[in-house]
Amino acid sequence: MNDDSGGQNEFEALRVEIARINTTLLELLSERAKLVLAIHDVKQGRALEAFDPDREQQMVDSLVGQNRGPFSDDVVRHLFKEVFTASLNLMDDERRPPAVARRPGDGDLVIQAGARHIGGRPVIIGGPCAVEDEDQIEAAAAAMERLGVGFLRGGAFKPRTSPYAFQGLGEPGLKLLADAGRRHGLTTVTEVVDTRTVDIVARHADVLQVGSRNMANYELLKAVAEAGKPVLLKRGFAATLDEFIHAAEYLASSGNESVILCERGIRTFNRETRFTLDIAAVPLLRQMTRLPVIVDVSHAAGRRDILVPLARAGLAAGAQGVMVEVHPNPSVARSDGQQQLDIAQFERFLAAIEDLLHQH
Amino acid sequence: MNDDSGGQNEFEALRVEIARINTTLLELLSERAKLVLAIHDVKQGRALEAFDPDREQQMVDSLVGQNRGPFSDDVVRHLFKEVFTASLNLMDDERRPPAVARRPGDGDLVIQAGARHIGGRPVIIGGPCAVEDEDQIEAAAAAMERLGVGFLRGGAFKPRTSPYAFQGLGEPGLKLLADAGRRHGLTTVTEVVDTRTVDIVARHADVLQVGSRNMANYELLKAVAEAGKPVLLKRGFAATLDEFIHAAEYLASSGNESVILCERGIRTFNRETRFTLDIAAVPLLRQMTRLPVIVDVSHAAGRRDILVPLARAGLAAGAQGVMVEVHPNPSVARSDGQQQLDIAQFERFLAAIEDLLHQH
Amino acid sequence: MNDDSGGQNEFEALRVEIARINTTLLELLSERAKLVLAIHDVKQGRALEAFDPDREQQMVDSLVGQNRGPFSDDVVRHLFKEVFTASLNLMDDERRPPAVARRPGDGDLVIQAGARHIGGRPVIIGGPCAVEDEDQIEAAAAAMERLGVGFLRGGAFKPRTSPYAFQGLGEPGLKLLADAGRRHGLTTVTEVVDTRTVDIVARHADVLQVGSRNMANYELLKAVAEAGKPVLLKRGFAATLDEFIHAAEYLASSGNESVILCERGIRTFNRETRFTLDIAAVPLLRQMTRLPVIVDVSHAAGRRDILVPLARAGLAAGAQGVMVEVHPNPSVARSDGQQQLDIAQFERFLAAIEDLLHQH
Amino acid sequence: MNDDSGGQNEFEALRVEIARINTTLLELLSERAKLVLAIHDVKQGRALEAFDPDREQQMVDSLVGQNRGPFSDDVVRHLFKEVFTASLNLMDDERRPPAVARRPGDGDLVIQAGARHIGGRPVIIGGPCAVEDEDQIEAAAAAMERLGVGFLRGGAFKPRTSPYAFQGLGEPGLKLLADAGRRHGLTTVTEVVDTRTVDIVARHADVLQVGSRNMANYELLKAVAEAGKPVLLKRGFAATLDEFIHAAEYLASSGNESVILCERGIRTFNRETRFTLDIAAVPLLRQMTRLPVIVDVSHAAGRRDILVPLARAGLAAGAQGVMVEVHPNPSVARSDGQQQLDIAQFERFLAAIEDLLHQH
Repeated sequence: MNDDSGGQNEFEALRVEIARINTTLLELLSERAKLVLAIHDVKQGRALEAFDPDREQQMVDSLVGQNRGPFSDDVVRHLFKEVFTASLNLMDDERRPPAVARRPGDGDLVIQAGARHIGGRPVIIGGPCAVEDEDQIEAAAAAMERLGVGFLRGGAFKPRTSPYAFQGLGEPGLKLLADAGRRHGLTTVTEVVDTRTVDIVARHADVLQVGSRNMANYELLKAVAEAGKPVLLKRGFAATLDEFIHAAEYLASSGNESVILCERGIRTFNRETRFTLDIAAVPLLRQMTRLPVIVDVSHAAGRRDILVPLARAGLAAGAQGVMVEVHPNPSVARSDGQQQLDIAQFERFLAAIEDLLHQH
Repeated sequence: MNDDSGGQNEFEALRVEIARINTTLLELLSERAKLVLAIHDVKQGRALEAFDPDREQQMVDSLVGQNRGPFSDDVVRHLFKEVFTASLNLMDDERRPPAVARRPGDGDLVIQAGARHIGGRPVIIGGPCAVEDEDQIEAAAAAMERLGVGFLRGGAFKPRTSPYAFQGLGEPGLKLLADAGRRHGLTTVTEVVDTRTVDIVARHADVLQVGSRNMANYELLKAVAEAGKPVLLKRGFAATLDEFIHAAEYLASSGNESVILCERGIRTFNRETRFTLDIAAVPLLRQMTRLPVIVDVSHAAGRRDILVPLARAGLAAGAQGVMVEVHPNPSVARSDGQQQLDIAQFERFLAAIEDLLHQH
Repeated sequence: MNDDSGGQNEFEALRVEIARINTTLLELLSERAKLVLAIHDVKQGRALEAFDPDREQQMVDSLVGQNRGPFSDDVVRHLFKEVFTASLNLMDDERRPPAVARRPGDGDLVIQAGARHIGGRPVIIGGPCAVEDEDQIEAAAAAMERLGVGFLRGGAFKPRTSPYAFQGLGEPGLKLLADAGRRHGLTTVTEVVDTRTVDIVARHADVLQVGSRNMANYELLKAVAEAGKPVLLKRGFAATLDEFIHAAEYLASSGNESVILCERGIRTFNRETRFTLDIAAVPLLRQMTRLPVIVDVSHAAGRRDILVPLARAGLAAGAQGVMVEVHPNPSVARSDGQQQLDIAQFERFLAAIEDLLHQH
Repeated sequence: MNDDSGGQNEFEALRVEIARINTTLLELLSERAKLVLAIHDVKQGRALEAFDPDREQQMVDSLVGQNRGPFSDDVVRHLFKEVFTASLNLMDDERRPPAVARRPGDGDLVIQAGARHIGGRPVIIGGPCAVEDEDQIEAAAAAMERLGVGFLRGGAFKPRTSPYAFQGLGEPGLKLLADAGRRHGLTTVTEVVDTRTVDIVARHADVLQVGSRNMANYELLKAVAEAGKPVLLKRGFAATLDEFIHAAEYLASSGNESVILCERGIRTFNRETRFTLDIAAVPLLRQMTRLPVIVDVSHAAGRRDILVPLARAGLAAGAQGVMVEVHPNPSVARSDGQQQLDIAQFERFLAAIEDLLHQH
């Protein structure tokens, strides 16, 4: 018997004891969780708030008072806070809308948008930043049809940093877009920026876009949800994925599960691009939700010369669509001129990503 | 004569020549600027857009065609782009509203808010995150009056990340806030979140707050401006100062120059605080505009224990006010419980910043 | 008896039951923690690693196998992971050096630096970005003495973004700095950039500075610690406070507890300043450690015009010193010209922060 | 003749005049540039600094003194500053090493690394975070050979956030790595962390890696360059692309042009991933330099479940290699356990990116 065997035996005995405690802890935690759910049922009947921070504080204070170490009071507070949060989430889970969170076994949501679908084989959404006049949107729409692109974008209400910049044509722009879409058999996408104009936009467009600056404009989300059209929701450029998904839940909880999530770049210290395309958001959003996920490469880059690699990256990472700004004559565009492709460039763009549109 | 004097003479001759060219460049640039202004006048009469990217592109192409070095074509493009931008800004300057940009000799704007003023000696704005019930807002208001704090905050419409979280009491909350303010002689501040409810909020509150999430909700800004009440505009948590000032210009250009700018923390990689208080924004905003600048320490920190040093820092850096969340009983608060001070803590907070409220 | 009392009784009974389980959970967690410490003691004797991820995985797998809900397997995994981490930290706590972490009752560390101290009343550290020649550093040192500033900074080894930029005078620069410091009775501070030149720098300077770019250069930290001089450790411009404190622990664990922490701005999306001064870091670092905390306003701002408000903010937030770049003739400085103050500006700077140097 | 033709004629006349001034400006700028180059030649002979901020300041002051509008003095300062910078860059361009900056017509640099090449068809670099013992590295190496992966990574010197974490085996680890590489015909890659141990690492490894934390450790870069082995340079997690390229220039200017650039994620506000893979950096670095560009997906993600989409995105965006952590038994790994793939997972990973390894 070597000199180490005493230590080894003692070591194993301690481990067995810990395993026994683990099991008891699990039993107690499960029992506690059942009691919390029972309280939840009682409360539901009595319209109480699920979360009772006052009661939670009393429980923690009482436990800290009973603490004799070796954990510090702070650690005790932390561990029980985790237990409380897990219990709270248990109740939330029951109420969470099925449209947004992906559950085991869930398939991908495929959304009907006009006469087309988003959520299966990747789609392209092309068109100018803003609808400027009939010739411009007609030329863009004709190009989309000729190139087999099914979705036409174009802004009629433009949120611009400066109050003195071109703000869009308003309702006449909506009509021009709708007419061009109809002539060329395209599904139209346009932005809505105000609760008061949701209805008018919904009358003209197939898909309502909520822009990055309005992702957390919850009143707008609720009003948009009620319009009954599919919604293309852009990620706020400083929103966490959790906040993005909660914004989608505002739509879903208001009755509209037809939400397309759009990663369009986040704000970082980078200066070479206008925003930083968060490519990891594509697989993460697909894992976390059932919703289609697309990438807007034009706003992420803010420049034309890297749109192909960004679109390729998006598709390779699993994006179900690419949004790109295309203008018949970018040099005279009234907004975002430096990032819009002209028709010939767009044709080359499509050729350069063609293989990845048909992957898998 | 030493062997270096030839080089020295040549050197000086080259410098003189450069100085001569500099002068001619300046003359030409000034002459060019006058021509651009003249074109602007002609265009104004004919309702053309000031910026003509098509024309600009033609000029650049022509210049690159004439370039024989030593500058590369890219540098030529860049230098003329700078000249074009300077010319464009020349025109913008003429139109920029005086309320927002500080010009040489401008004094600080002092804003009348209810019966009080913001913009001179620092003010404190205290009160709960949300108005919850009459007892709560009465207790908060009574504390403000007793402690000599003139401004009472409290949300009736709350933008919350989750659609399932408490969203505020709505109009009844506005009335509770207004009544409490009246009883205790306080100027009231509350958030507005939707163009459709601007009027109702403006009927009840002395100061309309536009929250961080809505800083770039331009339709809301325009609607708020028209309500005619002073506006407390919070910086978007990922907005540059330039974007923040342009948001203020939406208010000013819609006729409302009574804007209070509020730095409330930006989103960074930091994890110990909810946001990162951008202390440099305080002097920069004061330099760049005539508007009062305040700091919201509660949202910046997201925790109670560093509110005093943050408030001290804000005041020492020149902030003309501090906003802080105070709740009679934070442990039962329906939102932001962990960052609100109770009344006793608030009293100690005031004592700890007292010296800096009276500096200068 | 009203119809609600049944629900109320049931509700209270459930709460009592939960409180009972909470107590048992705490007892089990404490017992478990004692066992872990006992295993730790056995392992110590046998030179095993404290952390055994393999064993941890087995425990988790076993618990998940026993799980019958209502918590999901993921939640069970998460809760036990928290328990494991708390146990692990329990062992770390025993080994953590006392110099860095603040424990209840700890006073502030006051560090002897040359003939002066850092950690009590705020100090000023002034001087040029780089030592350029004898006249320059003499003029700077004379100004420091005349103005009652006790610390002279100046770089002899300069880490520069471009390999073609001025890299400092090297050892001759160290001597010029040391001589100027001696002539004027100043404590000298200079940067060390390479393990191979730590000794030579330590021979000449009173305080060794580790720059932002080298905060996570752990080999350098170990070498610097061994030199036995106090260390001014700058926060990496993208380091979390936790990483910053761990860098200080590299020094402390190598035997050198004389560490001054310097917040010098973090990299964010802001463009108006070179970095963003993280003012909340000042109180947080003072809470989390016993070490003196100072702010470097010149590098944070990257511009001269807001140095006064930043320094005032730092001091008001509790900083125990301010570092600022001062150059007798900034317009000819070989580095950082745009952010250095000249002597007259520095004198006005000192006057403008004077009140806060004597606060409390 | 309609009433608008007068305005139209005047308008055209003004445009012609502007075009004439543009041409004269270009002539003067070109002439000025030639004079600056002539001064540069004179200075070169006399060892003066290329950049003379004092002289620049005098020129600007003189020009501002001559300014009569309409540009403001600030705009005049800005425009001439741009002219000065362009002139300065003109001189820098002459000295910039050819290895790093891509010039028109440049092909891609293909780097010899051991018996293999990086810069053409994409490569895979796999292996554990740290070399832990002979069995571990042998199992990893055997897997690489079997799966047709030519590069084996493994750290012997590990920079760790905590001084108490496993710091690597040191030189014995280098030998284990080299032996395993030799047995299986693999090119080995390992990190160097200190100027004092560059030689010893260079004796054992085929490619020297400079980690993210040391990207701006310029003394290390210079020492590594002199070792004569190819260098895998990781981007600092808060470095701009410009800073990254300048770090590569430290290597090139010290005589080593065999540099592989590795994008490994930047620090942002995102919390779901450890870092944010900056996918746009891949095409931008390839545009801006001639160097091979690879992506490290393991460190970017910090989690296993999205390594496939990130690697696919990197390859689709043009990356010439993927680095990924592979450990025979990740659950017992001494570092980064949660992000390393086991052999079977790695095999599936390779299958899932196979199509993009052979694109184009």
